[in-house]
Amino acid sequence: MGKINNFTKLDLCLENYKHPLYIGKNLLDDYDLLNKQIHSTQVCVVTNSKVGSLYLPKLQHAFSKVKCEAVILDDGEQYKDERSLWKIYDKLLSSGYNRDTTVIALGGGVIGDISAFAASTYQRGVRLLHIPTSLLAQVDSSIGGKTAINHKYGKNMIGSFYHPHAVITDVGVLDTLPNREFCSGFAEIIKYALLEGGDFLYYLLDVLAIMHSYSVADMVGLDDLIAKCCMIKAKIVAADAKETNGVRQLLNLGHTFAHALETMTNYRYFLHGEAVAIGLYSSALLSYHFNLLSMTDVDFIETLLKKANLPTQIPDNIDLDLLKNIMLRDKKVKNNTLPFVLMRNLGDCYLEYGVTEKHLDLVFADLIFS
Amino acid sequence: MGKINNFTKLDLCLENYKHPLYIGKNLLDDYDLLNKQIHSTQVCVVTNSKVGSLYLPKLQHAFSKVKCEAVILDDGEQYKDERSLWKIYDKLLSSGYNRDTTVIALGGGVIGDISAFAASTYQRGVRLLHIPTSLLAQVDSSIGGKTAINHKYGKNMIGSFYHPHAVITDVGVLDTLPNREFCSGFAEIIKYALLEGGDFLYYLLDVLAIMHSYSVADMVGLDDLIAKCCMIKAKIVAADAKETNGVRQLLNLGHTFAHALETMTNYRYFLHGEAVAIGLYSSALLSYHFNLLSMTDVDFIETLLKKANLPTQIPDNIDLDLLKNIMLRDKKVKNNTLPFVLMRNLGDCYLEYGVTEKHLDLVFADLIFS
Repeated sequence: MGKINNFTKLDLCLENYKHPLYIGKNLLDDYDLLNKQIHSTQVCVVTNSKVGSLYLPKLQHAFSKVKCEAVILDDGEQYKDERSLWKIYDKLLSSGYNRDTTVIALGGGVIGDISAFAASTYQRGVRLLHIPTSLLAQVDSSIGGKTAINHKYGKNMIGSFYHPHAVITDVGVLDTLPNREFCSGFAEIIKYALLEGGDFLYYLLDVLAIMHSYSVADMVGLDDLIAKCCMIKAKIVAADAKETNGVRQLLNLGHTFAHALETMTNYRYFLHGEAVAIGLYSSALLSYHFNLLSMTDVDFIETLLKKANLPTQIPDNIDLDLLKNIMLRDKKVKNNTLPFVLMRNLGDCYLEYGVTEKHLDLVFADLIFS
Repeated sequence: MGKINNFTKLDLCLENYKHPLYIGKNLLDDYDLLNKQIHSTQVCVVTNSKVGSLYLPKLQHAFSKVKCEAVILDDGEQYKDERSLWKIYDKLLSSGYNRDTTVIALGGGVIGDISAFAASTYQRGVRLLHIPTSLLAQVDSSIGGKTAINHKYGKNMIGSFYHPHAVITDVGVLDTLPNREFCSGFAEIIKYALLEGGDFLYYLLDVLAIMHSYSVADMVGLDDLIAKCCMIKAKIVAADAKETNGVRQLLNLGHTFAHALETMTNYRYFLHGEAVAIGLYSSALLSYHFNLLSMTDVDFIETLLKKANLPTQIPDNIDLDLLKNIMLRDKKVKNNTLPFVLMRNLGDCYLEYGVTEKHLDLVFADLIFS
């Protein structure tokens, strides 16, 4: 059963851990590939109502010979909380799932983060397979082993480090992704390009220049773009899997602003990638105010973001004092200093510990819609 | 400040991880020792109402120069649940505790398990110091890196592997431990003696023969008994930190019965050690029915347990069918088989996969009060 597909297989090395990443089209129809990822007769799929209605039947078909039940969560970042987490535990326990279970995260970043946290803590850890269905999850959150749920006082405050046993990235599912979410995924791609610099940055500019002329189904090179981002991320994670030496913090480029924006709007106003886009632009402005980037560089970054239909400014009704206070409660605060990732150059990022409220005020002045 | 104490320092090696264990009297008065264990200015003590009223003031005094707040949970296994866990997260976040925080678990096994789970998941992991105050926690649960909370469907179903950064075992605090709990701790000591065999078994018999003639304060050799158990446990954990090759499962000697008994009585009837004592006796009987142990061996084990004032039988109103069903939902079930730790000899334990319902019925017949 199951069609034979062509796919790229990457072996991602992450510190002492290695797992495969499969990238290709229609991988959800490849029953052999899917069944090779589980090591028992117990599969539990975690998904949300939207993604589940589209792709859960495929997985249930693929796993028709083993026990395969599903937990269907409500869709949205505001559901990445303890109630959804307990829905997963309750299902696993009430249906008699044991330690041989494979938890499959079928969805975007929210489903990936919460399913991975559940898998890492159910009976102290069971097998985990990521099937990311948003561009953002495919290029970013399915790789690197960070799991989390949100707490009312902040995003991702409760979580663990737990790598998936495999990731299956079916670019075919992006056809059904709403355009706003597809664009949101490009914020993380732009982040990787800013971390990597060089040719990748200009290749990305070319892709963005023509992307709106094509449907996702016809887009050439999307697999490569995703693979490239995953490799950049894996390289950084391998150098600092548990965020102890500062290297991994470079992945937070744009994210300190983004998390604060999401927290103060209760995760309801911005998509994650949109908040990251504003965060990337803010980091560019901060880097300019630190006399590192030129205004030409800042404009180049703004161009990338705008070509991907991403925002760079925030509504003028945002309470800037509250935004600052939320930043200072960020979990990256260490000895009362909040490090920001700045750019010495495109492709040359570092952690800056000297950002003051005055610097933030300068950036905020440029961020508000005028 | 702080008196100078004598203590034993052991460096416990657990697979790729090493942490110190300090054993001695009045270590809670040794401010230097305590302050050396934290690496920042943020300490959060998790304890319960009973232990907190006795020893929290000492810690608050010891940490008077740093931020030191406390979370005081209700006392009892029935509070090792998500509500208590969220009390810890809420306190950490509402008081602005960051990643530099040291969580201190001041209490018995329940406080240790839940605090360690909170420490392992708060901001994906903060520093953890165990200060076990029950004999059971000192000889067993503070070592080995297992963290957990209970779920309504079973004990320890949600948890992680996370070693403490240090353990401080003050045997002086055992003076205030109720006698029933002190005896309960001996169940795990007897377990370690049955795992290790040889001289330790007969040394323990000697200690038990005279223990009721002395107060805890006057008991000689308690430090050594605790140190010996911790070293036996560390050796086993080092061989199988994440329970993947079967070695660590030997620590479950007596625990499959014990967990089922605790679950069906809602953790309210037996102390953990009491349930373990019945479990150890059940394992002895199972080993006898497998023609491994002689009745003389079984009687010897019964003698050890009885000398420690521990139970070996269960009340006749226990529903044995329910007890069996709960066992089959145990998280050690693998491919629908529940392994039991049996004894070929005293000091020679192994995992037996061939235990049937018929065997269990034979054991149950001997366990019920007649």
